Amino acid sequence: MFDVCLLGTGGMMPLPYRYLTSLYLRYEGSGLLIDCGEGTQIAAKKAGVSYKGIDTICFTHFHADHISGLPGFLLTMGNAERTEPLTIVGPKGVERVVNALRTIAPELPFSIEFKELAEQTEALRCGPFMVDAYRVNHKVTCYGYAVSIPRAGKFDVEAARALGLPVQLWNPLQKGQTVDYEGRTYTPDMVMGPARRGLKVAYCTDTRPVPVIADYAKDADLFICEGMYGEPDKQDKAKEYKHMTMQEAVTIAAQAQPKELWLTHYSPSMMHPEEFLPELKKTFERTLAVRDGRKKTLKYDDGGENG
Amino acid sequence: MFDVCLLGTGGMMPLPYRYLTSLYLRYEGSGLLIDCGEGTQIAAKKAGVSYKGIDTICFTHFHADHISGLPGFLLTMGNAERTEPLTIVGPKGVERVVNALRTIAPELPFSIEFKELAEQTEALRCGPFMVDAYRVNHKVTCYGYAVSIPRAGKFDVEAARALGLPVQLWNPLQKGQTVDYEGRTYTPDMVMGPARRGLKVAYCTDTRPVPVIADYAKDADLFICEGMYGEPDKQDKAKEYKHMTMQEAVTIAAQAQPKELWLTHYSPSMMHPEEFLPELKKTFERTLAVRDGRKKTLKYDDGGENG
Repeated sequence: MFDVCLLGTGGMMPLPYRYLTSLYLRYEGSGLLIDCGEGTQIAAKKAGVSYKGIDTICFTHFHADHISGLPGFLLTMGNAERTEPLTIVGPKGVERVVNALRTIAPELPFSIEFKELAEQTEALRCGPFMVDAYRVNHKVTCYGYAVSIPRAGKFDVEAARALGLPVQLWNPLQKGQTVDYEGRTYTPDMVMGPARRGLKVAYCTDTRPVPVIADYAKDADLFICEGMYGEPDKQDKAKEYKHMTMQEAVTIAAQAQPKELWLTHYSPSMMHPEEFLPELKKTFERTLAVRDGRKKTLKYDDGGENG
Repeated sequence: MFDVCLLGTGGMMPLPYRYLTSLYLRYEGSGLLIDCGEGTQIAAKKAGVSYKGIDTICFTHFHADHISGLPGFLLTMGNAERTEPLTIVGPKGVERVVNALRTIAPELPFSIEFKELAEQTEALRCGPFMVDAYRVNHKVTCYGYAVSIPRAGKFDVEAARALGLPVQLWNPLQKGQTVDYEGRTYTPDMVMGPARRGLKVAYCTDTRPVPVIADYAKDADLFICEGMYGEPDKQDKAKEYKHMTMQEAVTIAAQAQPKELWLTHYSPSMMHPEEFLPELKKTFERTLAVRDGRKKTLKYDDGGENG
């Protein structure tokens, strides 16, 4: 079960009816958060998300609406008696910025490990998640993220039988382990089919459209993308402040063909993000203008488990 | 008109139904804020408070639940096109702490002037407000505040007539100006009665009970005081974490005799602060367990204006 909850959908400043954009992902008991603006801990509580299980926090960039909630979030994780180390991922300088904010959250019952992004694209392993970070084009250094759950190939029963392997050795091989039997070594690739399609969520906000976004959103189960402005006359503003319009987001989605597109990071001036949908759906039908707390559980195409 | 709005009433962490404790005061177009935890800008928006008019922000101390909302608040003030300088008052280190938080809010269209408190008690003038800061007893250096609007004495018409002053000179004298007339100098004290009782709000949170609190809350129009715990069995916890129980707050109020006591800074575990009122009112009848956004307009005893 790969659970997704978009905790907030706002940009720039939190509002009484809209928290700042932040994404919570959960797989096999491990949580990953992307961005943590002011009020994210309130949005998480509202959505019933457990702080304690969050092992990784990724930041797209250091504008306040994406990171200002961190000190409070860390303290609340501490109050929930977390002791396991936390990994924080972000652009170059993430350790310096987080430590500056920790002036007001100096004592925590867990340690923090930093992973600073420096390249145009980087692939990291964070618990059960494969995290791909890719550089986008905002006023400051900013990354988009694609978070995937890889899925192994199918166990080939015929191949295992042909090798004469006893049934009790099948499971370790299925789990990726190497086994020795009657003086011979068996590796998983000898009994496993090719890796199957896993699950992928792509997340991109605070950028002008750049080709890399569609590359990482390609065939995603869910693509969550900034649509800061809806009105056609806001195009110049989007260019000036290096944001994306909803129309630009659906154009990227039309190229990338995710299973679903969720728009987010709405301008505080946008009261009803849904009103632009009829026009947007002409470009990409599977577009949703979601609200805070939207949840979805992603499943494999065949409905099966990972094994 | 001295307007008071208690934006939030929570302690420790913001909750979906309770923002962190922060007090907004307004007099003659100038606003003053005490404390600014995560979400205070949302609470202010909810209460319909104008960010732009806030000229002074006072901090009791630097625990995150009292200051974590500052970067976002400053940026939102900037977005509201404030250009007038802002004064920030707080314990020693306030400039260092605020500048650390400004790592994520480096560019603002207004300047910030700092007033660091160092003494046990300090009196400051902030726009129309007389601000008295007094040191209390928390885990870190912490101050309570009493904010007053002074009120001049009554204009003595008989005295002015006896001096032979023409009516057109009465108003400047009333406003505190010195005037020259027919070769003689006239000062306000020659025509004004003794200063009258003004208006006073006392605010105190995050401390054990200390005598100075009642001194500054004495005869206040409104005393806003921490009542973190209500249950008698939380007394030890209050001592350990250096907070006050509701019973301790009403005991102080009984000594200080303010016109009204508002309890605030409720523990996140306290669901219904009102439930303790019947018992508390036995000690101080004019006790209210208020909720977020509680407003009041304070008026002079005689209902008149300042003049």
